[in-house]
Amino acid sequence: MNISALLTSAGINTGICVGAFSLYSVLRKQPNLVSVYFARKLVQEQSRHEDSFWFGRLIPSASWIVKAWEASEDELYAAGGVDAVVFLRMVVFSLRVFTVAAVICLFLVLPLNYFGTDMEHKLISNEPLSVFTIGNVKEGSKWLWAHCLALYIITCCACILLYYEYKNITKIRLAHIAASVSHPSYFTVIVRGIPWVQDESYSDTVAKFFTEFYASSYLSHQMVYQSGAVQKLMSDAEKMYKMLKSTHTEKCCVPRLMRCGFCGGTATSFKMLSNEAKTPKEESCFDGVDVKKKECRTALVFFRTRYAALLVSETLQSPNPLSWVTNAAPEPSDIYWANLCVPHQIFWIRKIIVLVASMLFVIFFLIPVVFTQGLVHLDKLQRIFPFLKDIGRRKVLVQLITGYLPSVVFVIFLYLVPPVMMFFSTIEGAISRGARKRSTSIKFVCFLIWNVFFANILTEAAIDHYQFTFTKLGDARNIPNLLAKAVPATATYFMTYVLASGWASLSCEIIQPFPLLCNLFYRYILRNMDDSSYGAYTFPYHTEVPRVLLFGVLGFTCSTIAPLILPFLLVYFFLAYLVYRNQILNVYITEYDTGGLYWPIVHNTTIFSLVLTQIIALGVFGIKESPIASSFTIPLIISTLLFNEYCGQRFLPTFQKIPTKIIIEMDRKDEHCEEEMHQKLQSSYCQFRSRNLNLHNTPECSSKPQSVLGSAEMGDAARVEDLENSTRKG
Amino acid sequence: MNISALLTSAGINTGICVGAFSLYSVLRKQPNLVSVYFARKLVQEQSRHEDSFWFGRLIPSASWIVKAWEASEDELYAAGGVDAVVFLRMVVFSLRVFTVAAVICLFLVLPLNYFGTDMEHKLISNEPLSVFTIGNVKEGSKWLWAHCLALYIITCCACILLYYEYKNITKIRLAHIAASVSHPSYFTVIVRGIPWVQDESYSDTVAKFFTEFYASSYLSHQMVYQSGAVQKLMSDAEKMYKMLKSTHTEKCCVPRLMRCGFCGGTATSFKMLSNEAKTPKEESCFDGVDVKKKECRTALVFFRTRYAALLVSETLQSPNPLSWVTNAAPEPSDIYWANLCVPHQIFWIRKIIVLVASMLFVIFFLIPVVFTQGLVHLDKLQRIFPFLKDIGRRKVLVQLITGYLPSVVFVIFLYLVPPVMMFFSTIEGAISRGARKRSTSIKFVCFLIWNVFFANILTEAAIDHYQFTFTKLGDARNIPNLLAKAVPATATYFMTYVLASGWASLSCEIIQPFPLLCNLFYRYILRNMDDSSYGAYTFPYHTEVPRVLLFGVLGFTCSTIAPLILPFLLVYFFLAYLVYRNQILNVYITEYDTGGLYWPIVHNTTIFSLVLTQIIALGVFGIKESPIASSFTIPLIISTLLFNEYCGQRFLPTFQKIPTKIIIEMDRKDEHCEEEMHQKLQSSYCQFRSRNLNLHNTPECSSKPQSVLGSAEMGDAARVEDLENSTRKG
Repeated sequence: MNISALLTSAGINTGICVGAFSLYSVLRKQPNLVSVYFARKLVQEQSRHEDSFWFGRLIPSASWIVKAWEASEDELYAAGGVDAVVFLRMVVFSLRVFTVAAVICLFLVLPLNYFGTDMEHKLISNEPLSVFTIGNVKEGSKWLWAHCLALYIITCCACILLYYEYKNITKIRLAHIAASVSHPSYFTVIVRGIPWVQDESYSDTVAKFFTEFYASSYLSHQMVYQSGAVQKLMSDAEKMYKMLKSTHTEKCCVPRLMRCGFCGGTATSFKMLSNEAKTPKEESCFDGVDVKKKECRTALVFFRTRYAALLVSETLQSPNPLSWVTNAAPEPSDIYWANLCVPHQIFWIRKIIVLVASMLFVIFFLIPVVFTQGLVHLDKLQRIFPFLKDIGRRKVLVQLITGYLPSVVFVIFLYLVPPVMMFFSTIEGAISRGARKRSTSIKFVCFLIWNVFFANILTEAAIDHYQFTFTKLGDARNIPNLLAKAVPATATYFMTYVLASGWASLSCEIIQPFPLLCNLFYRYILRNMDDSSYGAYTFPYHTEVPRVLLFGVLGFTCSTIAPLILPFLLVYFFLAYLVYRNQILNVYITEYDTGGLYWPIVHNTTIFSLVLTQIIALGVFGIKESPIASSFTIPLIISTLLFNEYCGQRFLPTFQKIPTKIIIEMDRKDEHCEEEMHQKLQSSYCQFRSRNLNLHNTPECSSKPQSVLGSAEMGDAARVEDLENSTRKG
Repeated sequence: MNISALLTSAGINTGICVGAFSLYSVLRKQPNLVSVYFARKLVQEQSRHEDSFWFGRLIPSASWIVKAWEASEDELYAAGGVDAVVFLRMVVFSLRVFTVAAVICLFLVLPLNYFGTDMEHKLISNEPLSVFTIGNVKEGSKWLWAHCLALYIITCCACILLYYEYKNITKIRLAHIAASVSHPSYFTVIVRGIPWVQDESYSDTVAKFFTEFYASSYLSHQMVYQSGAVQKLMSDAEKMYKMLKSTHTEKCCVPRLMRCGFCGGTATSFKMLSNEAKTPKEESCFDGVDVKKKECRTALVFFRTRYAALLVSETLQSPNPLSWVTNAAPEPSDIYWANLCVPHQIFWIRKIIVLVASMLFVIFFLIPVVFTQGLVHLDKLQRIFPFLKDIGRRKVLVQLITGYLPSVVFVIFLYLVPPVMMFFSTIEGAISRGARKRSTSIKFVCFLIWNVFFANILTEAAIDHYQFTFTKLGDARNIPNLLAKAVPATATYFMTYVLASGWASLSCEIIQPFPLLCNLFYRYILRNMDDSSYGAYTFPYHTEVPRVLLFGVLGFTCSTIAPLILPFLLVYFFLAYLVYRNQILNVYITEYDTGGLYWPIVHNTTIFSLVLTQIIALGVFGIKESPIASSFTIPLIISTLLFNEYCGQRFLPTFQKIPTKIIIEMDRKDEHCEEEMHQKLQSSYCQFRSRNLNLHNTPECSSKPQSVLGSAEMGDAARVEDLENSTRKG
């Protein structure tokens, strides 16, 4: 690949981006699509836009860019919570650090690479890209100190920025906690592993335990109820029957089909049933002994003060650490009920299984992909499977299978990754949806870094026969050299990856093709004109955080080695800044918030990238026979690791525990309205309730057992929604 | 080595043991040596035995064995606390598990090994030992399932015993906590990283913070004071002057020279000074501004209830995790004051340095040893260093240097290890002497396992040229094979190691040569007849726990491979059982107790040994071409690791945190005598006080600043004592 080819590719991708953004600026003005591009506002405001036609609707404009650019951090916080702010800060951090890197590398490192060997340069547009990488610097060159200096500047700059970002985000997190006075979760503790006492319901045991040991602070509690599979099926059938019996013309009961496409109309059936009067049969189902049977060993316990709840959640209650396990409760909308019913004693073994499974999944993901790539060689397959010969006679089919199918299979496989990871995180036992997403994003980061970064480098190494064998990988000393040889060679691929995958994914993100198609399908084929029937999604942090981080990894590792990638990355981050701001402001809703817990992931991944970059540089300097540059790199690695350790000491504890000082001050502030808070508290957590409250004015929440039947799908509905959400984003 | 040689060696060692035990039974009856063999009782009872002569004194007897055997666990608990019970349980556990292993291996595995190949057996006494190892079983033998079965039985037995021991020790630990109602540590929290506020002493800051946030439970606090090096030297000089000026005939002030041999008579000087009236100059030293200057950023904060203290110690206080760091306080006699003065912010970097340093120390310890072994080849050295030729002419010197010096150097090096490890643990920042010993014992376990077990195996592998290179070690798949080849070959060495080092160390332990010689030196050369002047030591867990564990590792790894080691090990454990019981009852004093925290170390090391054994067996089965046995070993490894994880979930948390239930119950029990407790509390922690209270009836404790000067060595005295203690045991 030479410069002109790269510029052509960049031109094409720029064209696509400009086209997509223009298209978006037109589409967003269409009132019919308001539920796609302004879902957040629609949900918030409950108002319907008028459908008048005006000419400006058809002219592309840049107003959305201006709006996204001008939005202040406060607005973003109001729209997306701490997580959105953290996400955008990650983008800003990348922008800043790569601006510095681009200035240093393009003006200092790039000329040195270009004039690194005494060769006759062709016309610049015909130069191969390898001329711009460190591979072009001759061995033993005195100018390698410049690369080393660039590495130092980039590392220092990244560390300083990381430090201030961490500090800032800690401040935002603590301010967020201090400001969330109305959140019931701070008063609540999830108690699992309630021991079984003969002739006593779990509820009685909980009440007894907490009145005995926490008499002064214990307020009340609420049991979590089981919903077995058979019972669920039965109630589902009953609901289906009722649904079919009931009138189907009521406008307000139109199901949010888009969300429930997978789960067979749960939300609908549920709503209708719960609005009706209970039949005697239903009520009897939860009388007496039955209630006791259906209780889980889990309860939500409410305390009078936030401080008391914090203390209970952070201390060990019983001499047997497997009983009376306490955790801080998530927010009502964040809680993941399905996992609360699972006996928590088995989570440790599930965690191990998931760890092993996801490691195997990440490492061996490429194998099925490589296998499907075998379809390209259809002629060989035909020899093995004679029945394929019929296909071989039809030329179109052959072209389809060899040229198109492998990439489709690959894309499908890739789209399957986030749901699989989400499934793993669910199995792991997360009790909140936020924690599940966070755990998924950690897994997906590892997946992307391994399957995009390392897999390409290994392939490159295997192709170029750098005396490469897998056994050699086992020897730690070979790794820097291997990386050093393969990374400059792979840099060209990474450049096109940034252009193709990075820029294109942003175009895709802003156009929202999946909701758009759904909308068109419902509107013009199903003839359903109601805007509110298309659900709004929460921001898919579990796919977007890893994606942005992957580009960070590519940027750091290529910066000093192949600096030509940096301008393209800068454009990517700039576009990402605009697009994600716009999306957070307009499209995604915020149902739950981890309070900035994504930042430690960002921090650790960045430190990993920095150290990886330094190790690669060490290898490169070694190959280029520059002992001075090599020996200067080692202290840099050590100090980067020490910096990481310091940040871990200085900031991480506030992301793991909440400082008592803040909690005590919160308690003091609302001492006067304590009673009111306590009353609200009792009804805030509802295991069995419709989530789309905005569509129904009658709140169906009740913590009493008799309302339990007929609506046992909350957990499953949430799971399906999230799975769907993640599929879409994969 | 053949059977008869082994039996001869065993005979000699048995003779030495019997001799040592008989000598001990005589020596312990000598009234002059009561301070060596009954130090604990002497310290406890304060009585002096009569010096009358009776004939029985010179006849060896087994009465001590009977007494040691008969002592109940309660007596041991009373004498040595939970740690002693845990230590003896570790010995009992080893006894039990190796009894089972011996029965299985001697009656099932040993005959199979012996008749493993079709060979003509010599007279049994002339058989080489290798005939009894698994090396004698021919490849592809059908009888390897027996080895696999033995491995299963041993693992199951070990796991079941480990489980019940863990359960039992958890119970003992919790009972110990519940019973220690009079301990002031439960009411106390160590606060470090007190932020500096202008125009305020740290003391004021502490008072303000805790009255603001913990008004209902905060009782009082006590600052920790600095004693800088220059100031210490000055006060030392002052004390020396005073000591020289004062009369030196007072009997009661005879220094405990033995303890203070290294630190220049600190204890003496201190005592004399503090018994005298304070001069005006001394008192003025701590007036006004000076007091503020000398305050550390550390304080002991006392609370009204244990529960309040527990909560404060386990939660994060401030948004800045490096300030207001709280920890549960150790007991007054356990606290390690010297580390409390060190700003705790630097401990994280110290910890990293210590980790790296101790890893390097453990791994590269053999290098200087090997280097000194070069002395054996004096003739070669003479060629390099001509001045050595003079020595070469004197035959006696040559013999001394080549034959004796290397082993002396090795022994000296080995004796240096525990003090060096103790030094590392001190640097690491332990705030209690118990934690320091515990940390040392972890380091020493690693050291012993690496330098005795692995170093010998690697040497064996290197000598026998199993195509052994260090680069091959990097490949994980080679390790089981390497171990499988080397372990049976090294088993003979380990047998002699058990005989020589194991049995001999017990003889040495019971005779106590170092205190004995000191006693004789003071008594007959210095003519000092006072019994109480020889200090009593605390039990050296940091050397004895690792030593016993090392024999466990040897036993497990050799059990199925070379079962002939087991009888010798059983004898070792049986003797250890008697000797350590005796020593705990009679010799060692108990000043502090970790509350059974040594058990997790024992548990983890045992699991490590089991898994190591299984990996070796895997390698052996692989070499012997028995795929069935190999494939049966893999699930065993997995289930052992799962068992370990389960124990970690089930028991470990109680060793890390104290259950609130127990603490609340303790608080309830002594509600009526709260006031009394609080008053005692204020004076229980004294940074500057004489530790040998038993020798002086006037308690010199006072927490007021004016008593501080003139006695700033507490921390150092303790450090010297412990270093000395560890040197002696190394």
